[in-house]
Amino acid sequence: MLAEFDLIRRFFTPAAPVVQAGVGLGVGDDAALLVPTPGHQLAVSVDTSVQNVHFPAQAPARAIGHRALAVALSDLAAMGARSRWCFMALTMAGSEDDFESWVAAYAEGFLALCATTDTVLAGGDITAGPLTIAVTVMGEVPERQALTRHGAGADDLIAVTGSLGGGAGGLALWQRGERDLSHPLLKRYLLPEPRLQAGEALRELATSAIDISDGLLADLGHIRKASGVGAVLTPDAIPLAAGLEAELGLRGAEQAALCGGDDYELLVTLPRANLEQARQRLAALGQSLSVIGYCREAPGVAGVPDNLQDGWQHFSGETP
Amino acid sequence: MLAEFDLIRRFFTPAAPVVQAGVGLGVGDDAALLVPTPGHQLAVSVDTSVQNVHFPAQAPARAIGHRALAVALSDLAAMGARSRWCFMALTMAGSEDDFESWVAAYAEGFLALCATTDTVLAGGDITAGPLTIAVTVMGEVPERQALTRHGAGADDLIAVTGSLGGGAGGLALWQRGERDLSHPLLKRYLLPEPRLQAGEALRELATSAIDISDGLLADLGHIRKASGVGAVLTPDAIPLAAGLEAELGLRGAEQAALCGGDDYELLVTLPRANLEQARQRLAALGQSLSVIGYCREAPGVAGVPDNLQDGWQHFSGETP
Repeated sequence: MLAEFDLIRRFFTPAAPVVQAGVGLGVGDDAALLVPTPGHQLAVSVDTSVQNVHFPAQAPARAIGHRALAVALSDLAAMGARSRWCFMALTMAGSEDDFESWVAAYAEGFLALCATTDTVLAGGDITAGPLTIAVTVMGEVPERQALTRHGAGADDLIAVTGSLGGGAGGLALWQRGERDLSHPLLKRYLLPEPRLQAGEALRELATSAIDISDGLLADLGHIRKASGVGAVLTPDAIPLAAGLEAELGLRGAEQAALCGGDDYELLVTLPRANLEQARQRLAALGQSLSVIGYCREAPGVAGVPDNLQDGWQHFSGETP
Repeated sequence: MLAEFDLIRRFFTPAAPVVQAGVGLGVGDDAALLVPTPGHQLAVSVDTSVQNVHFPAQAPARAIGHRALAVALSDLAAMGARSRWCFMALTMAGSEDDFESWVAAYAEGFLALCATTDTVLAGGDITAGPLTIAVTVMGEVPERQALTRHGAGADDLIAVTGSLGGGAGGLALWQRGERDLSHPLLKRYLLPEPRLQAGEALRELATSAIDISDGLLADLGHIRKASGVGAVLTPDAIPLAAGLEAELGLRGAEQAALCGGDDYELLVTLPRANLEQARQRLAALGQSLSVIGYCREAPGVAGVPDNLQDGWQHFSGETP
């Protein structure tokens, strides 16, 4: 059996019993006691990462810790929420030889991202079993300012932060044997950065938002369905991740950007009148916002050739 | 790949789009938006249930759904919090023949307990992989009234709700081949009832509380350590689950009650002056409170014979 309490104490508890922001009582009681901010709503999401389904089991432990939290935080970014707290349910095999060094590296990746995103790890559970990580994240957003999927208007622009296809490109690289995490595409896949600041900056400017985890077309589909709009896309306007075309060829790169997923950029809709201000706010954060199309009343998606819409192979769950 | 969205829609979404208590936006966006109650703290806990570690893989799906939520809610009970919301990360094999009927029964067990505990399933994630369930529960408790582990005083009484040993007794029965969930001991093991109302009733009366998941002695150890007290127990005063002695013999029953765990009753400390009122409040809920010892300044636990303290075999992770 796992020495759960020792592990938690050694790797996941702050060195000194500090009073952390908004936490009355953290790791070490039956539940954490949190102090919500008056006038705000709580944005809460849970994301599960399973080995060989969502990430290769042999990925570096530090990247696995980072990534499990990052993909969950990305949902808060898509709501325009400020990240506050997270809870981690880590299930892992307890019998591996390098058990302790694995947990130490995992915790390093997880806690480093906590630090850069002002997120307090307020509780967790470590159990024995096949490697699975469920992270619940909690953020706050002023009342009535949350970015949802259902607010897109029929004349809104469609835009994305950053560049797309890097997640899928990084996976392809990994499957070809690349293991150098300083490679920009591999970094995009294994160490994605949730766009929390961008999400907050887009509050009151964007009419809907979602993070790109399933793929641009699939995630746009969620917005279209929730908002009751159609879309016209300009595939040539989609910013491709640097180096992607060199790795996958032009058609492969475009497919990766449209269908690949795992990019964790934000896909938003916004009125034309808000575009300039949105771009200025994001530029102040060192981030870009690219218009890739517009909404329309007629359902469906126009502008994307059929040969770019299908044929993309998602990570199948087989060990690469 | 799992048709996640279909599954969620079919089994976990309320039939009509209702506005549920305290939920601005539930299943179906990037995150749920919750509306906390002013003047309250949020009690949050996550608990993972892994097949063949925490429950037999062949247990009825309805019981697995109930139990995964129950063990998490039990932590809110131990804080004296009122349950409000839960988030469920379900990882399960997608290839089984009876896939749909399994999910339907699982959801039935999970949602039935949501209903009886006034808990809203506000979000979740369903992924493919070895059966693992992580449930994050969120409750509310008025400021400064939460029951923690660190408030026990050196003269407090030690008391438990209900009866003990039933969880361990039920597991023993299961391992002997019993499959009838109407058997009281099996029911205690597979369909435990979190003592939420008892926890709320004990606010401002108990000085510390914990739920009995690891076993009475182990969980008392957490209170002792957090509160800096020792304990004197009277094993004969511990109420044994009905039918336990007949199944395990007297010594086995006492061991199960002291060390077995999985009972999800509350273990509390309280001043003698509060005992009568605490008993009255619990009696009004149809529940009992039994004094089983008292705290003392000297560390350690007195009153428990050595032969009752060790030798208990916890569920080992082997398929029974």
